[in-house]
Amino acid sequence: MRVVSIPNLVLLSVTICCSLTETLSNGTSPNIIIMLMDDMGWGDLGVLGQPSKETPNLDAMAAQGMLLTNFYTANPLCSPSRAALLTGRLPVRNGFYTTNAHARNAYTPQEIVGGISKDEILLPEMLKKKGYVSKIVGKWHLGHRPQYLPLEHGFDEWFGSPNCHFGPYNGSVRPNIPVYNNSEMIGRYFEDFKIDLRTGESNLTQMYLMEGIDFIRRQTDAKQPFFLYWAADATHAPVYASKSFLGKSQRGRYGDAVMELDYSVGQILSLLQGLGIEKNTFVFFTSDNGAALISSPHEGGSNGPFLCGKQTTFEGGMREPAIAWWPGHIKDGTVSLQPANVMDLFTTSLALAGISPPDDRTLDGMDLTPVLLNGSHKLHNRPIFFYRGNEMMAVRLGQYKAHYWTWSNSWEEFQHGINFCPGQEVPGVTTHDQKEHTLQPLIFHLGQDPGEKYPLSVLTMEYQEVLRNISAVVQQHQKTLVPGMPQLNMCDLAVMNWAPPGCEKLGKCLKPPKSAPWKCLWPH
Amino acid sequence: MRVVSIPNLVLLSVTICCSLTETLSNGTSPNIIIMLMDDMGWGDLGVLGQPSKETPNLDAMAAQGMLLTNFYTANPLCSPSRAALLTGRLPVRNGFYTTNAHARNAYTPQEIVGGISKDEILLPEMLKKKGYVSKIVGKWHLGHRPQYLPLEHGFDEWFGSPNCHFGPYNGSVRPNIPVYNNSEMIGRYFEDFKIDLRTGESNLTQMYLMEGIDFIRRQTDAKQPFFLYWAADATHAPVYASKSFLGKSQRGRYGDAVMELDYSVGQILSLLQGLGIEKNTFVFFTSDNGAALISSPHEGGSNGPFLCGKQTTFEGGMREPAIAWWPGHIKDGTVSLQPANVMDLFTTSLALAGISPPDDRTLDGMDLTPVLLNGSHKLHNRPIFFYRGNEMMAVRLGQYKAHYWTWSNSWEEFQHGINFCPGQEVPGVTTHDQKEHTLQPLIFHLGQDPGEKYPLSVLTMEYQEVLRNISAVVQQHQKTLVPGMPQLNMCDLAVMNWAPPGCEKLGKCLKPPKSAPWKCLWPH
Repeated sequence: MRVVSIPNLVLLSVTICCSLTETLSNGTSPNIIIMLMDDMGWGDLGVLGQPSKETPNLDAMAAQGMLLTNFYTANPLCSPSRAALLTGRLPVRNGFYTTNAHARNAYTPQEIVGGISKDEILLPEMLKKKGYVSKIVGKWHLGHRPQYLPLEHGFDEWFGSPNCHFGPYNGSVRPNIPVYNNSEMIGRYFEDFKIDLRTGESNLTQMYLMEGIDFIRRQTDAKQPFFLYWAADATHAPVYASKSFLGKSQRGRYGDAVMELDYSVGQILSLLQGLGIEKNTFVFFTSDNGAALISSPHEGGSNGPFLCGKQTTFEGGMREPAIAWWPGHIKDGTVSLQPANVMDLFTTSLALAGISPPDDRTLDGMDLTPVLLNGSHKLHNRPIFFYRGNEMMAVRLGQYKAHYWTWSNSWEEFQHGINFCPGQEVPGVTTHDQKEHTLQPLIFHLGQDPGEKYPLSVLTMEYQEVLRNISAVVQQHQKTLVPGMPQLNMCDLAVMNWAPPGCEKLGKCLKPPKSAPWKCLWPH
Repeated sequence: MRVVSIPNLVLLSVTICCSLTETLSNGTSPNIIIMLMDDMGWGDLGVLGQPSKETPNLDAMAAQGMLLTNFYTANPLCSPSRAALLTGRLPVRNGFYTTNAHARNAYTPQEIVGGISKDEILLPEMLKKKGYVSKIVGKWHLGHRPQYLPLEHGFDEWFGSPNCHFGPYNGSVRPNIPVYNNSEMIGRYFEDFKIDLRTGESNLTQMYLMEGIDFIRRQTDAKQPFFLYWAADATHAPVYASKSFLGKSQRGRYGDAVMELDYSVGQILSLLQGLGIEKNTFVFFTSDNGAALISSPHEGGSNGPFLCGKQTTFEGGMREPAIAWWPGHIKDGTVSLQPANVMDLFTTSLALAGISPPDDRTLDGMDLTPVLLNGSHKLHNRPIFFYRGNEMMAVRLGQYKAHYWTWSNSWEEFQHGINFCPGQEVPGVTTHDQKEHTLQPLIFHLGQDPGEKYPLSVLTMEYQEVLRNISAVVQQHQKTLVPGMPQLNMCDLAVMNWAPPGCEKLGKCLKPPKSAPWKCLWPH
């Protein structure tokens, strides 16, 4: 029985610890690359147990770096997860949530009115203090209206798209999603950037790779530190791959997409080595949320041994593949069990750059450099919070996870075939009603029971001690929590991508309908 | 869509192919070590996705050798699996099955009357032709009556036990299980060989390690090739570990047992290197069947992303961790997707030793040396059969698996809490009635759907083509199958381990009751 004791407990919200001066004594700020996959699951990597073992480059990256097996996202859906990564704050703080209904996942479809608040400070804005040049390649998903776009929030360059690559649309009911180069659109999906829904063929990952490579080369020449946020989305339905990868995987089209992303990661790491800048470039690979089992088997990935997937606050929805790579700084072939999350990437990046985090707001990330650089085996006993919309559904502390609310999706949706836990059913856990357990949370020992199948008996000493410790953390968290203004409440067909900046030059402006906002419906 | 075409199909029962003369040109026969775990699951190894990553020695073994991710046992239960490994034949041929009821798992509890037939030829008997000295360390499970014991079937030495380490018994209703040294018992579990059911402490794995090490040292001195069959059972409930491993795992007692086995594997490999015989010793690590989810979470392991566990013919019951290690012969860090199974170890071992397989009987194993030694990426398109007792439940061919019968266990058992698929439920698949699908099998694509959740639609071309190919294989298999005499039909309290050979010297003989045989009841 492993029970957390209160004295070890650090009730940290802002972690300001462990200066890096000894590690980065030459005073230079390293380049930073965050590779964020879309709907890729924990179990999609060979090194994490995908039976086909088709990710040689990621497996090698792990062998050359550190694998973090207890790494989480901040939300089981793309937009809030990405907002959390870039702000270092929980979606409930940075506004990427909804209050339209209880415990609902919300994101940024093109009818969303809101986006990332101007009051939030994004990682590239902070990194400017040390002269970083920042580029995002791929999916933004923090709002598509002009004031929300990446170049308004600290990025110097962008190649990619503000929303998911859904479509095609006919341009009358809905416009196709634009692809941007920096602050102007250069075309639209399905019109200028092909995605063949029948064959799954698209060259987008190739383009994203080329854009990333080009940026790295240019910045290396310019001798300025860079931040590359490489957010490819080939593993989000509709999944796609370029011709040379289609049909290559044992896993079908989804596996083809994974293989192309794996190849691209390998190309980027090789480039760093070829340029001789690998010892000055910190690279982190992860995903925005668990695999979308709703799209399985053809367009959804694997969450390995974990319960359910995307949209849920079970491990399958929020535990992510995570690899840190920095030759000469991170010891090769290491595994860290440190519970960590995407918000730590904000804090950690600042620490690496030698920049103090903003002191006027609560941050939820901790500085992982002691874990990454010193291979510290002593784990910080910090909580991981699992939110769905405006509700704290669960919390992890040490090996224990307490569910205060359980829900997969509604009976109504489920009966229409929408299933976030296909083939899985844990009575009283994967419920189709929103079950409240706030007085007596369901507690799992994730080491013994990573699949969240066997709640501890409430009659045990173990349960009582764990609950006492977790309750203290939860009380502290909730007492001090100031929710941000929710950004994902309102929808309006008029705000869609009818006429993005740059559309005139291309003759691709469409006429928006009259504004008629409504409270967005978030069914799960 | 990947469809098997008939011309590629090799309907092999006996595989006599690919002489090894070019590989082993010096004419010496290598030592052979088969490490067979008990109820360890595919997902229990770090390299196969166990989140706690607590098997550094096995992970290193894989990095230095070949990982086979599509490796199977011959039966989802210990005794038939072990009989298949040592005879190279399906249990339905070698007699390790029952006809008392349809599709039932049977094994060798101490009331079993039968055991391995004298007509079967076991691997150590074959290896004698080249002067091998053979030892089994650990669990035998091929019958405990005198005529069935290891030294009657080709082994020169034995340290271990004929049955599972269940108990303790009081010696009146049931005797405790004996531990043998060669042909005589030297004590009994719980009496002389402690297993503390409360703490989980036992030194048995330590003893098994010492016995293995001692044997290797002696045989190395003796300059004879050896065969060591190292069959430790610490991961079978009641799971145990020695004091220095208890409490060390993130996974509880089961993980402690895994860590001690992992340590022991590392010790054996280090010894081979220390003795300078690693290039002359072929080592294979695997398990007898899938993790016993019925014993989860405290005494059961993980089957990773696969469906159900021990006792079932789903992937979780029969896909096994498998690592081949032979420095200088097997290329390091390779992964093979070749569908293979424990019966191949018989055929492969003979090929390595340079011994022709018996030609008077059907063998079910194939010679894996082309895969292992030449790193052949071309996969043999051979079938894998999934039996439960006397019934062929399923067949894998290429990436496809066709279920002719599905069953987890009966409603009656299930309602009493016996669940082979806890937390999992695939409608129409994990059934509690024996469902016949012989006219229209359920077919899964294991690459796209390793969890067996999404049967192909029977209306697709893919289904029709796959069925045609698999049907040809099944017809050929069934047409030529001659079942062996079933050995696991009769039980009798009089045959239990009352007075094993050697009991007199220890004063440990007990008086058997009068013989009163009955047809054993095999409930699932």
